[in-house]
Amino acid sequence: MFRAPTRLIIGPSTLSRLGELAREFRATRALVVSDPGVVKAGHAAAGISALEGVGVACTLFDCFGENPTTEHADAGAAVALAVQPDLIVAIGGGSSLDCAKGINFLHSFGGRMQDYWGRNKAPADRGPMLPAIAVPTTAGTGSETQSFALITDATTHVKMACGDTRAAFRVAILDVDLTLTQPARVAALTAIDAISHALESHVCRTATPVSRIFSRESWRLLAANVPRVFAAPGDREARAAVQLGAAWAGLAIEHAMLGAAHACANPLTADHGVVHGQAVGLMLPHVVRFNAAAGQAGYAELVRVFLPTLDDAAAGSWLADWLVSVLEDGGLATSLSGIGISPPDVPRLAAAAALQWTAGFNPRPVTAADMAALYEAAR
Amino acid sequence: MFRAPTRLIIGPSTLSRLGELAREFRATRALVVSDPGVVKAGHAAAGISALEGVGVACTLFDCFGENPTTEHADAGAAVALAVQPDLIVAIGGGSSLDCAKGINFLHSFGGRMQDYWGRNKAPADRGPMLPAIAVPTTAGTGSETQSFALITDATTHVKMACGDTRAAFRVAILDVDLTLTQPARVAALTAIDAISHALESHVCRTATPVSRIFSRESWRLLAANVPRVFAAPGDREARAAVQLGAAWAGLAIEHAMLGAAHACANPLTADHGVVHGQAVGLMLPHVVRFNAAAGQAGYAELVRVFLPTLDDAAAGSWLADWLVSVLEDGGLATSLSGIGISPPDVPRLAAAAALQWTAGFNPRPVTAADMAALYEAAR
Repeated sequence: MFRAPTRLIIGPSTLSRLGELAREFRATRALVVSDPGVVKAGHAAAGISALEGVGVACTLFDCFGENPTTEHADAGAAVALAVQPDLIVAIGGGSSLDCAKGINFLHSFGGRMQDYWGRNKAPADRGPMLPAIAVPTTAGTGSETQSFALITDATTHVKMACGDTRAAFRVAILDVDLTLTQPARVAALTAIDAISHALESHVCRTATPVSRIFSRESWRLLAANVPRVFAAPGDREARAAVQLGAAWAGLAIEHAMLGAAHACANPLTADHGVVHGQAVGLMLPHVVRFNAAAGQAGYAELVRVFLPTLDDAAAGSWLADWLVSVLEDGGLATSLSGIGISPPDVPRLAAAAALQWTAGFNPRPVTAADMAALYEAAR
Repeated sequence: MFRAPTRLIIGPSTLSRLGELAREFRATRALVVSDPGVVKAGHAAAGISALEGVGVACTLFDCFGENPTTEHADAGAAVALAVQPDLIVAIGGGSSLDCAKGINFLHSFGGRMQDYWGRNKAPADRGPMLPAIAVPTTAGTGSETQSFALITDATTHVKMACGDTRAAFRVAILDVDLTLTQPARVAALTAIDAISHALESHVCRTATPVSRIFSRESWRLLAANVPRVFAAPGDREARAAVQLGAAWAGLAIEHAMLGAAHACANPLTADHGVVHGQAVGLMLPHVVRFNAAAGQAGYAELVRVFLPTLDDAAAGSWLADWLVSVLEDGGLATSLSGIGISPPDVPRLAAAAALQWTAGFNPRPVTAADMAALYEAAR
């Protein structure tokens, strides 16, 4: 199966195309979903200006933060109910994009976010969702090219992946200029997240020849350009390559899945408030070593794009070391002790990690004991 | 820009998914467009049976042949006018798929095929075209993943490329089983056509980092598997790889264009009735040498997927030789004299080739004199 419902518009200054797209969708009233940081950077205003320029009335919803919750989605849906938009525009990082998808679920289909936890939970006869356009301002989430809304249950703190083919954005505008305002730390966190998407989707159990086209291309762009962005944050060419690489990684996930690094990362975020990119980046080298030790050759295929003579074992080891160096260059912690996680925390984390949906897609089976060993290795 | 409006359903026996798809589109009356050879092979009946199984009334239109003309499209549109279908299903090779797109233009927008010659000639406010599903039974055309209908003007014999983003099929079913009934000669003709799509789109002037993802993947599949299909026509795995490679090549063309081999091929078809795959395959090695001589490195990138140590010049030369061997293994002619074209024909062919739309996209500029030299080299 191959399905890429999101059209990508790629290039500098493409935010200005927003008005023309709104006309294409015959939009008259747009709900603009944008987190407060992005609003402050002026990107939401620029988007609203492009929309108002073609006569589209805009309402901004910005009452949410990192890892949007069911309460945030509910609040956004209440605004949508009042405004009755015919277009949703998400401008921001993964949180804005996920929150916009969540609002779209609730506004289009009713009910609660929990009803859509999983894949294609809404009945087919409910028809389409509102058309939505994504304007990512970070390069990492991949939310712009996939059909899952990650919404955290405000009560249980469980991150729910709510997927529906209708939830994918119709268009994503990849305007490199919008990524230049990211703080260096955000750029590092999102870049390592994108790299983890490329690597985990490439080797996961449900990877296919189709999904690997996108994980391979994503890796090719990210591995070559993330170090360039860290070295020279103003390098627009490298920034654009990372932005596109992150989008392809999203499409790879859409056609495959993730693995143990994401399973290990989610409890760190839920229980200890570790930001997602830090959590997944820190665990990833250990998951790579764990999978490579079981003869996983998918990593080697990627590494050999750049180092064609390495054998599988050497490639796995090189990759794990390279990931640690990327974390260091990005100013991120490389050990759990560095972020205040101590040995007594491990059993609870391991038990939660083993229950994560993504754990089941890791190429090597992972038990709770394996998860504990991964956390221990990461200490 | 990246836009892939056609969902691909890939795998053996996927023709049976046709009913479920028709339901997804809420279809009640389908126009099935299928050439007489494919009807005879039973594929049209199998498709109709799947559609009728979910209560969709079907009308078959099969009054057309290779390189469908404006008259064929007009006849199909007359049938559509009578039947008022809410779904078009094309089952067959490139001719069936192109004819179905042509009928869709006329039925959805009115007018004559000539009105749509070029790209996006229909006004944006005409709305969408009828939903259409492609079921290719050959592996070569790439028509299943692109938005152009190739329809020949019945009077002038000019092949018109009529493109509109709305003309792309919503879904293409790549059921390898349907390709097994192709005569060996058709398999050879379509395979070399697909290879030409991968190569020409990869090096053309409008190639982009996005288009090259698909030309590269197409080449990887086709170069490895076309020889396997020629050696063992019943090899379903190799057949499936060629079928998918041809579809990616179509997506590469959609994001880029073609080049001088197609420009040289069209007059051979129009003036001398040379079948398209033979014409393009015969000219391609000479175009590869012509472009490689001007330092075109794109071929080398592809060749090095398999032969990583070759330098650019050696790779271009290897590729031209390899293409000749593929023609020979497929039982196709490798020279113009072998298909009855003689020196006095060249000036007229060269003049026509230089006027072809695709000529302008060749990476090295091609004059009528260059075209004449290419035909001379191919004699």
